[in-house]
Amino acid sequence: MRFDIITLFPEIIEHYCSFSIVGRAFKENIATLQTHQLRNFGLGKHRKVDDYPYGGGTGLLLSPEPLFSAYNSVPKLESKSKTILLTPRGQTLTQPFIRNELLPQEQLIIFCGHYEGFDERIMSVVDYPVSLGNFVLTGGELGALILVDAIARLLPGVLPKGDSAHGNDSFADSEGKLLEAPQYTRPAEFNGMKVPEILLSGNHKEIEKWRLSYSAIHLKKQEVNKPVE
Amino acid sequence: MRFDIITLFPEIIEHYCSFSIVGRAFKENIATLQTHQLRNFGLGKHRKVDDYPYGGGTGLLLSPEPLFSAYNSVPKLESKSKTILLTPRGQTLTQPFIRNELLPQEQLIIFCGHYEGFDERIMSVVDYPVSLGNFVLTGGELGALILVDAIARLLPGVLPKGDSAHGNDSFADSEGKLLEAPQYTRPAEFNGMKVPEILLSGNHKEIEKWRLSYSAIHLKKQEVNKPVE
Repeated sequence: MRFDIITLFPEIIEHYCSFSIVGRAFKENIATLQTHQLRNFGLGKHRKVDDYPYGGGTGLLLSPEPLFSAYNSVPKLESKSKTILLTPRGQTLTQPFIRNELLPQEQLIIFCGHYEGFDERIMSVVDYPVSLGNFVLTGGELGALILVDAIARLLPGVLPKGDSAHGNDSFADSEGKLLEAPQYTRPAEFNGMKVPEILLSGNHKEIEKWRLSYSAIHLKKQEVNKPVE
Repeated sequence: MRFDIITLFPEIIEHYCSFSIVGRAFKENIATLQTHQLRNFGLGKHRKVDDYPYGGGTGLLLSPEPLFSAYNSVPKLESKSKTILLTPRGQTLTQPFIRNELLPQEQLIIFCGHYEGFDERIMSVVDYPVSLGNFVLTGGELGALILVDAIARLLPGVLPKGDSAHGNDSFADSEGKLLEAPQYTRPAEFNGMKVPEILLSGNHKEIEKWRLSYSAIHLKKQEVNKPVE
């Protein structure tokens, strides 16, 4: 997987991507990362990238010229290349979307917004407008990092073998279950709080049943939050 | 607002918080940030923070001792102090939750998970288990940064005056509208793509009506994604 990220804050992207599990994906060339400083495509002496919205309104929008110039400068793979724009107006990010739509790609070009938003015309090159959820952030960098993190951990060789990203391929089966059941580790008693008896029982059939009882709750929640068609 | 963040990767938190709008909040002491390296509370010579789950399963969980030790070391304000744990099992983050529950606090203590999750007993000190959405990440650092970013931009003096965080206080009125309507800036025509006539008309009443037509869509979506009670 190749990530191309168009942003005013490439340092934020590069710094996060040097750590931990995601860092391993890039260090071991399981994925590659290229940031593109939008400011380099700004207009005039001051490399201006933003302007006031037509029709009135507060804040500044990213202008079309620098956005398209930056996009056009990104070398694109002939196939399996998709472009994502992070915007509260996009479809809500979900694990099935990550697995089924994003993970099979070979290149993801990601626009990070800043200020008040984008000139709408950039949407003409966007395959997936994506929203993290119903909340407002100062920019798209954290959203881009969430995409990189969520995808990188699913790439073969990134997580240690036996980790929960492996196994069955559907979210509900391979991860929903683990997400929902409370988990405990040693000591069996801490500050008077005990691990549930069932987990110490060694009865794997009953443990599985107990864990699955939580998975049902999760499946229900996921139906409600399925992506907007 | 004082943020106390318990994490294995304090550098990630501190680096992001030095940039842009959020960086301004900390530089100007509108908010303060203190990270707490969980590793410092690890057990034994190797400062071990994790262990295998009871009842079998893949991956490692953060152990109770270091989690509680780190939590106990954080100086707590007597009132308006809440503790958040980022977990896919939490209630889904929304703008009304940020505004109504988190913004009025004076201290937020945030646990970032890593590996497979937490020993469930740490939940005994958690006021709000929070999920970003139905997707899986390698750790809670991005979630913590999303909380910091979403809250910091709402603190008085952080965003420039006249920005959209000000004005009416409900999400739908002050921001939902701006979120949903497509926005355009100069030039009026770019690569054959034109700005909608209405936005160039100067008729502010009609422009408002056009923008509000998008806001209705947003309100509907938000009802679906309201936090789990």
